[in-house]
Parts: sequence; C-alpha cells; structure tokens
Amino acid sequence: MMRYPYPMLDKPNRIWSRQTDQKEDLKVHEWIENVGESVPDWRDYDVTILGVPLSKSSISTSAASENPEAMREAWKSFGTYNLDEDIDLAQLKVIDLGNVKQHVTDIEYTHKQIQEAMVAMRTHHPHTLPLSLGGDHSITAKLVEGWKQAHPNETIGILQLDTHFDLRDPNTLGPANGTPIRQLIESETVQGEYVHNIGLHGFFNAKELKTYADEAGIHYTTMKQARKRGISSVIEEALAQLEDKVDTIYLTTDMDVLDIVHGPAAPAATPGGMYSEELFEAVQIAGEHPKVKAMDIVCLDPRKDVGTKSVKAAVHTMLSFLTGYCRR
Amino acid sequence: MMRYPYPMLDKPNRIWSRQTDQKEDLKVHEWIENVGESVPDWRDYDVTILGVPLSKSSISTSAASENPEAMREAWKSFGTYNLDEDIDLAQLKVIDLGNVKQHVTDIEYTHKQIQEAMVAMRTHHPHTLPLSLGGDHSITAKLVEGWKQAHPNETIGILQLDTHFDLRDPNTLGPANGTPIRQLIESETVQGEYVHNIGLHGFFNAKELKTYADEAGIHYTTMKQARKRGISSVIEEALAQLEDKVDTIYLTTDMDVLDIVHGPAAPAATPGGMYSEELFEAVQIAGEHPKVKAMDIVCLDPRKDVGTKSVKAAVHTMLSFLTGYCRR
Amino acid sequence: MMRYPYPMLDKPNRIWSRQTDQKEDLKVHEWIENVGESVPDWRDYDVTILGVPLSKSSISTSAASENPEAMREAWKSFGTYNLDEDIDLAQLKVIDLGNVKQHVTDIEYTHKQIQEAMVAMRTHHPHTLPLSLGGDHSITAKLVEGWKQAHPNETIGILQLDTHFDLRDPNTLGPANGTPIRQLIESETVQGEYVHNIGLHGFFNAKELKTYADEAGIHYTTMKQARKRGISSVIEEALAQLEDKVDTIYLTTDMDVLDIVHGPAAPAATPGGMYSEELFEAVQIAGEHPKVKAMDIVCLDPRKDVGTKSVKAAVHTMLSFLTGYCRR
Amino acid sequence: MMRYPYPMLDKPNRIWSRQTDQKEDLKVHEWIENVGESVPDWRDYDVTILGVPLSKSSISTSAASENPEAMREAWKSFGTYNLDEDIDLAQLKVIDLGNVKQHVTDIEYTHKQIQEAMVAMRTHHPHTLPLSLGGDHSITAKLVEGWKQAHPNETIGILQLDTHFDLRDPNTLGPANGTPIRQLIESETVQGEYVHNIGLHGFFNAKELKTYADEAGIHYTTMKQARKRGISSVIEEALAQLEDKVDTIYLTTDMDVLDIVHGPAAPAATPGGMYSEELFEAVQIAGEHPKVKAMDIVCLDPRKDVGTKSVKAAVHTMLSFLTGYCRR
Amino acid sequence: MMRYPYPMLDKPNRIWSRQTDQKEDLKVHEWIENVGESVPDWRDYDVTILGVPLSKSSISTSAASENPEAMREAWKSFGTYNLDEDIDLAQLKVIDLGNVKQHVTDIEYTHKQIQEAMVAMRTHHPHTLPLSLGGDHSITAKLVEGWKQAHPNETIGILQLDTHFDLRDPNTLGPANGTPIRQLIESETVQGEYVHNIGLHGFFNAKELKTYADEAGIHYTTMKQARKRGISSVIEEALAQLEDKVDTIYLTTDMDVLDIVHGPAAPAATPGGMYSEELFEAVQIAGEHPKVKAMDIVCLDPRKDVGTKSVKAAVHTMLSFLTGYCRR
Amino acid sequence: MMRYPYPMLDKPNRIWSRQTDQKEDLKVHEWIENVGESVPDWRDYDVTILGVPLSKSSISTSAASENPEAMREAWKSFGTYNLDEDIDLAQLKVIDLGNVKQHVTDIEYTHKQIQEAMVAMRTHHPHTLPLSLGGDHSITAKLVEGWKQAHPNETIGILQLDTHFDLRDPNTLGPANGTPIRQLIESETVQGEYVHNIGLHGFFNAKELKTYADEAGIHYTTMKQARKRGISSVIEEALAQLEDKVDTIYLTTDMDVLDIVHGPAAPAATPGGMYSEELFEAVQIAGEHPKVKAMDIVCLDPRKDVGTKSVKAAVHTMLSFLTGYCRR
Repeated sequence: MMRYPYPMLDKPNRIWSRQTDQKEDLKVHEWIENVGESVPDWRDYDVTILGVPLSKSSISTSAASENPEAMREAWKSFGTYNLDEDIDLAQLKVIDLGNVKQHVTDIEYTHKQIQEAMVAMRTHHPHTLPLSLGGDHSITAKLVEGWKQAHPNETIGILQLDTHFDLRDPNTLGPANGTPIRQLIESETVQGEYVHNIGLHGFFNAKELKTYADEAGIHYTTMKQARKRGISSVIEEALAQLEDKVDTIYLTTDMDVLDIVHGPAAPAATPGGMYSEELFEAVQIAGEHPKVKAMDIVCLDPRKDVGTKSVKAAVHTMLSFLTGYCRR
Repeated sequence: MMRYPYPMLDKPNRIWSRQTDQKEDLKVHEWIENVGESVPDWRDYDVTILGVPLSKSSISTSAASENPEAMREAWKSFGTYNLDEDIDLAQLKVIDLGNVKQHVTDIEYTHKQIQEAMVAMRTHHPHTLPLSLGGDHSITAKLVEGWKQAHPNETIGILQLDTHFDLRDPNTLGPANGTPIRQLIESETVQGEYVHNIGLHGFFNAKELKTYADEAGIHYTTMKQARKRGISSVIEEALAQLEDKVDTIYLTTDMDVLDIVHGPAAPAATPGGMYSEELFEAVQIAGEHPKVKAMDIVCLDPRKDVGTKSVKAAVHTMLSFLTGYCRR
Repeated sequence: MMRYPYPMLDKPNRIWSRQTDQKEDLKVHEWIENVGESVPDWRDYDVTILGVPLSKSSISTSAASENPEAMREAWKSFGTYNLDEDIDLAQLKVIDLGNVKQHVTDIEYTHKQIQEAMVAMRTHHPHTLPLSLGGDHSITAKLVEGWKQAHPNETIGILQLDTHFDLRDPNTLGPANGTPIRQLIESETVQGEYVHNIGLHGFFNAKELKTYADEAGIHYTTMKQARKRGISSVIEEALAQLEDKVDTIYLTTDMDVLDIVHGPAAPAATPGGMYSEELFEAVQIAGEHPKVKAMDIVCLDPRKDVGTKSVKAAVHTMLSFLTGYCRR
Repeated sequence: MMRYPYPMLDKPNRIWSRQTDQKEDLKVHEWIENVGESVPDWRDYDVTILGVPLSKSSISTSAASENPEAMREAWKSFGTYNLDEDIDLAQLKVIDLGNVKQHVTDIEYTHKQIQEAMVAMRTHHPHTLPLSLGGDHSITAKLVEGWKQAHPNETIGILQLDTHFDLRDPNTLGPANGTPIRQLIESETVQGEYVHNIGLHGFFNAKELKTYADEAGIHYTTMKQARKRGISSVIEEALAQLEDKVDTIYLTTDMDVLDIVHGPAAPAATPGGMYSEELFEAVQIAGEHPKVKAMDIVCLDPRKDVGTKSVKAAVHTMLSFLTGYCRR
Repeated sequence: MMRYPYPMLDKPNRIWSRQTDQKEDLKVHEWIENVGESVPDWRDYDVTILGVPLSKSSISTSAASENPEAMREAWKSFGTYNLDEDIDLAQLKVIDLGNVKQHVTDIEYTHKQIQEAMVAMRTHHPHTLPLSLGGDHSITAKLVEGWKQAHPNETIGILQLDTHFDLRDPNTLGPANGTPIRQLIESETVQGEYVHNIGLHGFFNAKELKTYADEAGIHYTTMKQARKRGISSVIEEALAQLEDKVDTIYLTTDMDVLDIVHGPAAPAATPGGMYSEELFEAVQIAGEHPKVKAMDIVCLDPRKDVGTKSVKAAVHTMLSFLTGYCRR
Repeated sequence: MMRYPYPMLDKPNRIWSRQTDQKEDLKVHEWIENVGESVPDWRDYDVTILGVPLSKSSISTSAASENPEAMREAWKSFGTYNLDEDIDLAQLKVIDLGNVKQHVTDIEYTHKQIQEAMVAMRTHHPHTLPLSLGGDHSITAKLVEGWKQAHPNETIGILQLDTHFDLRDPNTLGPANGTPIRQLIESETVQGEYVHNIGLHGFFNAKELKTYADEAGIHYTTMKQARKRGISSVIEEALAQLEDKVDTIYLTTDMDVLDIVHGPAAPAATPGGMYSEELFEAVQIAGEHPKVKAMDIVCLDPRKDVGTKSVKAAVHTMLSFLTGYCRR
C-alpha cells in the first residue's frame, strides 16, 4: 500500500479517536469523542453531550441556537486538567451526540424531537449523565418531560441558576423561554416545592410571578441574599433540602444569571448578577452530588458576546460541573 | 388654565400632527403620521406603512424582526426633499399603522395575522399603497395572498430584487424565508411567468432551483447580466413586459440583493451584488409605474449592520420608491 | 363612528396613559408618564425626570448628550418591581419632562436654560423630586445654582460619587465638566465642608486639587478606603454628618466612579473603581434619606458603551435610588 | 563624550529632521517636518499643515476634533511616492504647525484663534499653501475670513465637495457646521456666484436651502449629475468658470461627500455618495490648478470609523491634492 | 448489530464522503473532500487545496495564519452552482490536504516545509492543480521554488494581483512578505520579464522598487490604468504575452489588491483598489487558461475583517477561479 | 532673531523636557523623559523603560508587539499623583529608551538583541531599575539571562504573576512564550525553588507541567488559593521567602493572570482570574521591596482589547509598581 506522502501536513477535520499514546496535554476537543461511522458502545460513556440549537422560542430575538457550535469551538482552547482541584477530567469518558435537528418553522415539532432525544438517551444508555447545551430555556421543559417520560415513577427536583422565575404563562406565550418551570408545574412533571431557584436579581420579574412562585411553594434566593450567605452555602442547602425528597435533581443553568460584565452574551444580561467564579463554584458543588443526574446550559447568544468572554464562561461552567462529577 | 411653565424644554415623544405652520426642513418622522387615539380618516392617505417584525421563519438565525423599528429610528435623520429630482415627498400623505402583532412560538398564527392585515388594508382604504417593512421574505407570500384574497379577480405580477430565487420547497421547510415565490406559484396566487427576479448572483442558488424557475417560466436576470445591460433598462423592460398582462405589480425588495459592501446587514449578504445607487434607481423607476401597487423591503437584520449603513440604505430605498411614486 | 379595523396591529409610538386595568408586569416606560398635549396637574407627581443633553462642555470629547435618550430606550426592558426589596416602584408617580433645549454653539446660553429649568421645577411643583439625566458634570453646577435661586435660604449639601474632585479652575476652562464643585464653592452656593465625595481613585486628580479640597474642607473617601470600610457605612456616615447641617442634600452620580469593567462608557472610565452593585447599594441608601431632594446621573457617553452595559447600569442606578425613595 | 550605548534600540518619538542620507522609501511622517525648538525658516516651505481640532460647533455630536491626530497617525503607513502618476511628493517641503488651541467652553474664542492662525500664515509665509485638517465645517468660514483679512483686495472663490449646501442660518444655530457658506456670503467675504458645490446627494438638504442657493447664484452639481457627466469634467468646468473671475480658489472637502461605504466616519455619512477614487481624482485636478491656494478636509469623526477606512481616505485625499500640486 | 437510536440528531463533525445520492444543493464543504483515515487515490482529483497558515514572516503584525480555517468555515455557506455562468463546480473533484505544520519560532524551517509540500504534490499527483491558501505572501516564493524543484526544466511565469511590487530586499528583511518576487528573481527561479503584476495602487511602493521593477523587466499595470483599459483586457493581454514564453503560469492573489471597502481584512488594505467583482472576473479568466497551473490567495487577516466580508470575497475568488477552470 | 508667530498653536510632537516651571497636574507622558539628540546623563535616572515589541514567538497569534506603543499612548491620560497613597511619582526620574529593534523573520536574532539591551542597561547605569514592556513572555527568559550575564555571581529569584506555569518544552517549541521559566531553569540561570508563581487558574496547564513544577521545586499558588488567603499576604510571603535566598527578585507580570473581564486583551484571557485591583495591590507590594530590581509586563495584545480596558490596566499596573517603589 502507498505511503501517505505528507509528513509535513496536519490533516483537516480529522476525527479524533482515543489512542493508546494519549498525550498529557489533552485538549477538550481531543478528549470528548464524537459519533463516527459506526454505532459506539454506549455503555462506555459517563457523560453524553447533546446540542439543542433552538432559540426561535425566545421572547426576545436570540441566536442562542449558535451556542452549541460556539462552545465546541471554544473548548478547543481548554485542557482537561484542573490545576486548582488537581483533577484530570480525562478520567471520564464523554461522547458528543451532536445536535437535535431543527424544523425551520414548526417549533412544536422541534420541541417534540428534543423530548424524544432525552427519552432515547435514558433508554439506550441510562447510566450516562446527559449534559445539554441550549438553545433557550424552553428546552428545559422538554428535556425534563423526556426524563419523566422515561422514568415515570421518579420524583424530580430542579436546581435552577437564573435571573428569572421562568414562570410566565404558556397559555399566552406558548412554550416560550420564559415559561419552562410553569410548564413543568402545570403538567405535574415537577412539584413547585422541589424547585430551587438561585440568583434572581434586578427589575426583571413581575410581582405576579413572585406571587405565583409563593403559591406554588417554589424556593428562591435572590442574588443579593445569595451573596450575603455565600453561594456555596446556598447551593449546599438547596441540595440538602432536595436530596431526601427527590430521586433526581436536574441542574439548569440560565447564563443570564451572570452579571452583564461576566456574561454579556445572555439576551437578558443585566448588572447586579452572579460573577463567573461564583457560578463555577456553584456548579462544581452541584456536580459532586450523586442525585444531580442531568444538566443544561441555556440562553447564551454568541452573537452578543464581547470577544468570547461568555462562551468561555459557559465552557468553564461545564468543566467545573464535570470536575465536581469526578469527585463522586 | 395654567400656562405650561417649560419654554426651555423639548417634550419627549410628542406625537407629531401635521400643522399649518409646516416648516420646510421637515424630517421624515415628522412627515409620516402615526395612528393616535382616534381612528383617522383613511381616505386622506396615499401610502400606509406596515411593520412586519417576523423573522423566526428564517432559515438562518435573523433579527430582521428589529428592522421596522430600526428604519423608523434611522429615518429621523432624513428629510423629505429629494434635491436630485427636485421632488418633495411631503406632497404625499403617509400613515404608519405600526406592527403586526407577533406570537412568540406559533409562526403559522403570525403568518395569518400578516395576511389579514393586508386584507384589512385593501378593504378599508383600497386606494392607498401598502408599503411593508419586514421581517424576512416569508412575509411576502402572506402579503400577496392577502392581496389576492381581497381582490380575487386580479392578476398579480411580481417584480423581485433578490440574490435568491426563493423557490425552495415549503413542504420541507414550512413557510420559511427561502420559499415565498414557490408558495405563491403552488397556491396559484401568482403565475411563474409573471415573476421577474433581478439581481441574482453568486453561489447561492442550487441548480435544481434554476430548473424549477425555468419550468415555471420565471423571468430572471443575474446581477452580472443586469449590470451589463444597465439596471434601469432591465427594470423598465420587466415593467413593460408585465404591464399588459397583470393588474397589479407587487414590488418585493430583498435587501440581500445588495453587495455585502453596501448592505452587510442582510443575513445572506455576499460580494458581487447590487450597489446601493443601483437599487435606488431601480425602485424609483418601479415607483413611477402606475401598476406597482404595493412594495415590501425584507431580510435586513440590523444587528448585523456595520454602523447603520444597511438600515440607511433601506430607508433611502423606501424614499426613492416614493420619489418615483410622486411622478405618477 | 367607524371601528378601528386593525385588531392585529400594535400602534406605533402610542403615548401611554395610566389606565385602570394596569397590568402587573409594568415596564418602566409604561410607568413613567410623558408630557402630552395638555398641561398635567403637577401636584400628582412624586418625581420629575429631566433630560440635560449637554456635553459640549466636556474637557475630552463626549457624546454624553445622547445619554438621556439612551437611558429612555434602555429602561423599556426594565420592570417596576424590585424582587430583592419586594418594592414596586409603580407606587410612585413619575413624569418625564423631556430635555432642556440645546444651543448649537452657545454653551453659556444652554447653561442658563438648565438653571432655569430647575428654577421652574422648584417653583411649579416644589414637592416633586427632580432627577436629572446628563449630559456631563458641568450641569450639576447649574442645577444646584437653580435650586439655590429658588430656595435662597436653604443650606445645600452635596453627596458626590465620583472618580474626580471636579475642582479644576473655571477661570481657565470655563464652566467645564471638571469644575462644578469649585464653581459652587466659589459662587458660595455650597460650602466646601458640606461636600462629601466618595469613590475617588487612580491617577486622575492632580495634587493641587487635593490641596484645594483640603483647604476648602471637602470630605472625601477614596475607593480603596471606601471598600475597606464598606460602601454602605461610608454613605451612611456621610449622610449622618450632613443631615444636621444642611436643609437639602443633592446627590450627584458621575458614572466614571464605576470601574471600567462595569461602566466602560464613561469618558474617563478607568480600572480600580466601584462595582455596579456597590453603586446600586450606595444610591439606594441615599434614596431612603428624607433630605436627599435631588439627584443627577452624569458623564455617560453611550457611544463608548460595550453593548449597553453602562446604560443599563445607569438605569439600574436610577431605579435603585427610587427603591430607596419608596422607603421614606 | 560618551558614546550612545544602545545600537539595538529605536529611539521613541525622535523628531525627524530631513537628512542628507534620505532613503527612498520615505514615509509621510518622515517627510513632513514638525516645528522643533527653534523657529524654522518659513521661506523654505511649499505647504503648511494646520490642525483645527474643533467639533463642538457641530449640529450633531462629533469627535471630528480627533481627526488631525488620527490622520497624523494614519499617514505613518503611507509613502511619498505616487506610482500611478510617477510623482514623488518628497520634492515638496511641508511643515506641520500643530493644532490651533481649543477653549473648552468658549467656541467663539476658538473660532477667533482659527481665523488668526490663517492671518499669521498669510502674513509670515504667504507663498506657502495652507492645508487645514478639521474639525468640522464651521472652521472653513473662519479660515476663509482669515484669508480675506490678510488679503482684503482679493476675490475669493470656493470649490466645495459636500453632501450639503451648508447654507443653514447662523442667526439660529450660531456659527455651526451647517452654516459656513452662508456666513461667508452674508459677511460678503465670498459672493454666492463664486461658490461651486459638487456632490450633493440624498434627502439631506431642505428645499428652502436650494431656494437660498438659487437666489444667491451658487453653482451646484448633485452627485447623480456629477457621475453622469464625469467627476473630472465637472471639476475642470468649475475651475474654468472660476479662474477668470477670482484671485484665489479655496478648496473645501467635507468628507461626508463620500458614500457611507467609502467614508463611514463622517457624522452625516449616507449611501448614494462619491466613491473614494472619484474624490482622489477630483482633488488631484484641483491641486494642479495654480489658483487653488488653500485646502481643507473637514467633518471626519474617527470614532465612527470602521477600521481606519475613512481616515486613510482622508490621508489619500490630502496626498492626491499634493500630487496635483507637484504638477503646477 | 444495534441500530443507531438517534434519528432526530445531526452528528457533529461528521466527515463527508461523496455519496451516490448526491443532492443538488451541495454546499462547498460537502463537495470538497478531506483526507480521512486511509490514503486516497490521488489520481482521482482535479484540484488539491493546501492551507499554509504562516504569517510570522509578515512585516506588519498579521493573523493571516488564521485565513485557511476562516475560509473553510465561510465556504460552508456557499453552494457549488454558479448561476451566472451556469456551471456546477461539483463536476470537479477537489481534496483538501489540510495545513502545512508550523514551527512556533523557526520561520526558516516552516518555509522549508512549505516548499516540500509543493514538491510532494508535484511528485505524487502532478496532474492536479494546487490551490494554496495563505498565510502571507512570503509563502509564494517557497511554493514557486517547490514547483521549480519538482520541474527544473520548466519556465515559470507569474500573474500577480497585488497592491505592491513585493520586490523589497530579502537581504535586509529576510524571506518576509514584501520580498517574494525579488527572491524568485534573485534565485533565478523566475525571470523578471515573466512577471505580470496588476492592480498596484496608492502610495505604498517606494520609488526604488519601481526602478528595480523596470530594470528587471517586470510588467506592471496600476489599478488606475487597469480600470481604464478594463480588467478583463488587461488580464487577457498578460496571459497572451506569457503563454508563448512560459510552460506554467502561477497565479498569485494578494488580497490587498482589493479596495479597503471590499477587502478590509488585508493588513495593508487601502482605498483606491480593485473591487471584488473585478477580482472575480480577473481570476475567472485566469482559471480558463490551460497554462495557469497553480494558484494562491494570500495576506488576508480574518481578525481585521468587518463581518466576514473579506473572507467571503476570498472564497468567491477561489470559486470564480474554479469556474474558469471548468471551462478548460 | 525672528519671533515665533503662532501663540495660538500647540506644537505637534514636541519633545518634553523637564522644566523649572513644572506644573502640578503633570501627565505621565510629560513626566517620563525620552531619549533626545544627545546622550543623557544616565546617572540621573531611577527607572528605565524598555519596549520589547516581539510577539512572533507566541504560540497563538498575538499582536503583543503593539503593546509598548499602546501603553505609551494610554498613559497620556494618567497623571503622576496617586491620591490613595498620597504619593507623587514625579519624585522619580524615569527615562524611556524606546524599543528593541526587531528582525522581521529571525526570531533568534531579535532574542539576542533583547538580551544585549539588558546587558547594556546593567553595564551603563546599573543603579536604575529596568521596566520592560513586552511583547510576549518569551522575552523574560532573555531579559533575565541578560541580567545574569551582567551579574554572573548574583542569585536571581522570580516573582511571577501568571495563569500559566510557562514550563513548556523549548526543545519542541523553540524559545516560545510558553517556555521562559523552563528555559531559565534548564540554563541554570534561575533555580526552580526560587520561582514563585501566583495566580494560576483554569484548565490551561497540562498535568505534566505541574509534575515538572513539583520536581523543580517551584512554588505556586493558584488563583483560588490566593484569593482565599488574600493576594497581599501571598505576595508578602513569597517576597519574605525569597529575600533571604536571592540577591535580586525579578518581577514578571503576564497580563493573562487577569480575569477575562478585567484583561480581555491577553491572548489567553479566561474567566476565573485575578481582578485588576488585586493585581495593582500585588505589584505595589512588590514595588516596595528593595530586592525587586526589575519588572516586566507581557502578553497583552492591544488588538484584542475592548476599548482600552486592558491597556489602561497595564499602565495602572506599572504606576502601582512605581508607587510601591517610591516607598523604598
């Protein structure tokens, strides 16, 4: 057979496959595996990544649909080794399934595909942790509903990091990005008292939504309260309260929880929010908890980013969560 | 009654109403009237402006939904007097109806509202010319269908300035922004031979679409051909061919017909396109023609603009069309 | 009478008037009233907003003249309900008077108009709190002089949040934006010992200005000192010191007090400054104090903004102040 | 004497002085001389450059005050050799006098300084050609008035390249940037019939200004007309008409004559304007004419530039003019 | 075997392989093949694409090293069908070899790899046309030297589209991006009289370089001359003059030949240059000529781009060249 | 002798020389002296500034070569008086030597010049503190080697503020910007145990580098640890540990130690880093220590900056260091 005559070239877009001669300075894109020509052995994987590029369901115009590709591009500059915690993520096996297909004009159809993608994940490799990259927050309703469909007897709790309650009325807006928690409560997928929302701030929640939250028994901690008590404590308490009552805690991270200085790319970014190192700390703690079995990162519009500040924060958020996961 | 004590202040957001002491250096926003508290006498108006802020139906992510407001903001710096043609647009009476309401997640519902807005315009003040500001190109199908619904016996022709055929298959994409001409042909609203598309360029039309266009009898002139023959001649010929065969010519201007240098804000902007002065010339000629009875301007995403270059070009396009209209 | 035929349209630029069916999720622009066709009953209002779009008086080039419109645009995305404090600003009645008219080339004339606008406010509705949106810091001298003209027997104190002393010499620069505090001291409108300046930082105050400040008895706290002692304590102490000695405390907020990371749009933005949540805290405390009877926000050039980070911080600053005001 | 020990260093900010070992690839900043410690022999110089950083007199906010420094920075990347014309500008001796001092708040005072700078130039080295870099267009009135003051018996003509008439009323606006030609006519410095304005376009001149222009006998050619007839011919005809009637032709170039695509940094930039190569051609022809004895370049706000596109066009405009000058 | 359970997902980064069910609306990245796991049969391919991401050899700082990836990303939005010419590029078989490996600090070593990549291409599949994507212009010297090394008996001509002569002295600068043509002449790889340079403009070539060009017998046409005579004619004449004298014509396209308005991303972009449609026309004509056997596109720094204007122009340039190639 | 006729002008680019009538509000560029026509008396100076515009040695593309000029431009807006510490830097005499000459293509040669510049400084005015402005981090190896060459018997310690270890292998990369500390250790210029690195964070150091660091005895404190213990304490402890063991402490500041929010212009900027006020505090403490005898600031690419946020932080860093120095 002919020898490959180009020792001086890098091949373009070469699919990486984990090799025996794994180098130490593994980059994230070399570590996370992609689906190739043949069906992988799903049992090998600890975590599956799912891109959910839907943002047509956003109340304000959003290109959060471009976030999954933006994060995949950005993580090429991250390594797998976390010096602060002395943990190498490369001990985990992670596979990236790609993106849920999107219909151009039928949002309901797309929502159905998202739910079915979660059902398929829970059916075909139920031991792996699904990590979904939005897209806007409407996808969380479908992903949690998918989980419930696959595990009808489980009690689900939600740990939400968000500027907003996301309790707006789906009867008015349809299944839009301001409504997922209300959808889940009204469809009885999740009980209000099993929702813990941390980081709400500013002038962005109507009073009627607070009333709804109170009536539904939702737990919430504003950013100001959270900073006074310490983010770590607040997260730990929320997890402690949930762990006895639910089977599964679903962690949803709306990137607009970040201060506009740290996450300018969130369509609803505003001053007075969380700092990125606080967010990293929060998700790392959540990652350590054995009942946190799914995570998503939503509402980041890369076109609004300043440089790649917000997208890098999103990647770091994902890696901090996985750092916690390694500690389980 | 108390005297107003603030001679040194400008009032904010004051609704302008045409006054007897009309100053000569009228700005466009002082000239175009808005709907106020009471129902206006529709018979007074030559032209109605309609904002159609829908871009969820776009194949690629688009904030063309923000174009109507962006144009309204930009035209505050334009006057009504066209020095080159010595025509003052202030001789026309123009009313801005505002925007078609948008559903957050139900595109089909929004499309229906758009069509009904056209029906209402044709019913309540059929002598005024509707000038619609998109939004993406999917709105053209609904606006023309609305026209047809209001005037079922009219034969409609289309003069299209566009980089694309817009003949993609609605069965696959739904009523998306690549499909309006095909929708109109398949619904028998417009016959293919009464469509004249001018300015197609680049590598952005699949060969099968050309085949479809040929089979449907669509007339098209690529940008390269148009520049060789002169834009003015090409437009004049198209109008001449249409005028004997149709009752109404609908002019649709996809801003991506512009070269990326002149209209960077079109989501599909590309080099090799039309120059802004060519576009102004083209629509001015169309504006002069008595059978051109409706116009739209679509597919301009202000978030992609460089400064306000493209939005200003869109405003100038509208004003050039109205300059022609004054010549009727 | 004819029915309005457009149920499917939003009217453009409709003047909002407070209605009986006030919805809970009131946006700030729906809450703040504008001056309409008839003279309002001034006694109804708690707060008047005044735009002062002057920045020709700036030492470095500034488009702070565009700030009032930028803030009005930005507050459309803010609601009236402050979740953290469980206070709904909608309990206040606020009217926006519009902007002080600007002469193109005669800065002295414009300054006179600004002063007279304050005199008119204090004469026609003295119980309302004037909240002025600059423009540059030169306007503060005129606004305070206007106050003094209307209330010649009052002793006025100043609570200033600023990177600079603003004690440069008006004999050299004219009434420019580096000079307002010195103007007020030299015109004996305010005594130096009743000025408290908090947040000075960096290498931006000449030593001679410190000497002047010391000789004039001005109280000042650098950013570094303020952070060590806690912003809240520093503000509370300043208010406590002033409250026994003056009749009125004028709060002036130079947005360049913010760190360049939080307020990049200030022409003199620099690292080492205040964080936005510290500023919000500071003005909220000031807002609670019954002797704080006027406020301004100055030196924010929206053209220098990164996204709308700084303009949103300015709006939040205004709303935090009003949150405090609701507590009185 | 000690030897300089740093052969491996470039000295910072070294004043360049024309040396015997002049290298061929002279950059513009190495060629144009600056004023040093001692008074130069003015008789040596063909051209003097004068920076006039005034833009507080602009109707809309402008940082055209930063243009002189921006052009000086940009011309560091230009050489002195014009390949197309085979002319090396280094044959001219050019000195940069620096900038007219600016008062922070007294525009009238600054205008007086500008006028006196021109008087001084005409008094101390009347054979050199003054080339002034604005600043906004208000400076042209003062520069021409300065010329008239120095040469009271000369008849002055104006060749203006501009989007606007600049005939707005100084009684209303003061000596602002929309008024210079009217100021010159009303002060009888220049007669209307000796003004030739080329390149007007768009919707930016009120009809009353056209009436004023017609009554004053001003010659004008819109951009559309100019392009039809050819820019070169139009310029040559204007010069031919002026040369018999006036002693001095003052060339004023308002950069907003450029299409927004070629000169986005002009505060009033708009589509439909002149292309940069047309402008270069126009000023080169003007530069060749022996009666063109002064030039200015105004209304370019570097903060609005896209990259350095407009500033580079301004430098090229200056160098094209000087290329023509070499042909005299 | 297990079925793939994710019909609702797109796989990430799937390597595309030409399939029997080729759809008509093929995108460029679906058409151009990549090197996979096994050695391809080189004889199948008409054209090979080679990325040469070297820009450390640039005189001014440049990120032209990022151009190959930027072009690969941008061509995902281009189709293969050229409507204007009714030619579908999909009739060609094209393979993308990837990028020449880069040493971080040893530019000489990298240059050697570039030359060897060309030698390998000419040795292993000499019938395919190499199309190299720079990188800066220094790579052209190495690519042409590689060609000469592989075909020592061939006479090579160069058709250069460029703002500059690229005749600066490698003895002073080393093998930098201002020197390639001089390197090739001094190494006797190419004779000066077989170099045709078209599009030179502005003040960017020292007079001594013109002297060198004249003495070396280089043919050159400035942009102004080229536009007067018509770009097509100028290119055709250059090809006609070369075709009898040389065996191979190497086409090198320095993107700085474009006007700054059309190609702002070239580090040396300047007004007065070529328009993109002129460049497309030029390379298409060159592509038709059977003796044009290699092409490169250099000096485009994507970080300087405005949107993706320049990168899209580069892709269009490549596709226009291939359109011409299809006509052979 | 003739009088200078231009009292109304500022001279351009006038070299500033310290005069007897020194004004109090001295700007930094008026205080720092430049090298003029004659050789200065080196003994007068406390500090020498050296620009080292090399970034071709960077692993990722970088325009850090433009940092020295960017800092010189930015410090024109800084004064010399530090209000917080009541210290006026003008008590120091500082001279700016300009920049090390750069070879376009021979990085090794440039590195040699950098080393020789340090040798010359240590030979000709050994009592002044060299403050070098990079350029990328590769220059630190050469500067420290130059120090060692001039003072072969000194023991050198390094205080490093950095996101990275900079221990990558020069055998693979050459003397690139990831390698300087390893170069110094392998050349036995500095012992590993005398290196203190503070501020490492994120996923940007391969595990093998940590192993290397541990084996070499390098002291390091991650950002998370540093913030827990307080930056001041960490710096003080590092200095305390070094002061007994070494003769000279070289302070190297890699600007990528800053959080991406505070220093977006570092090519490797990332969330989770140091805040600017922490960095200012750190270098001020280092500046106070008598054994800190040299400083550099590296890896800041002004083209990546957002506004001038990062460049201003770099200037402030330099001035904070000098503030500490005044305390010695």
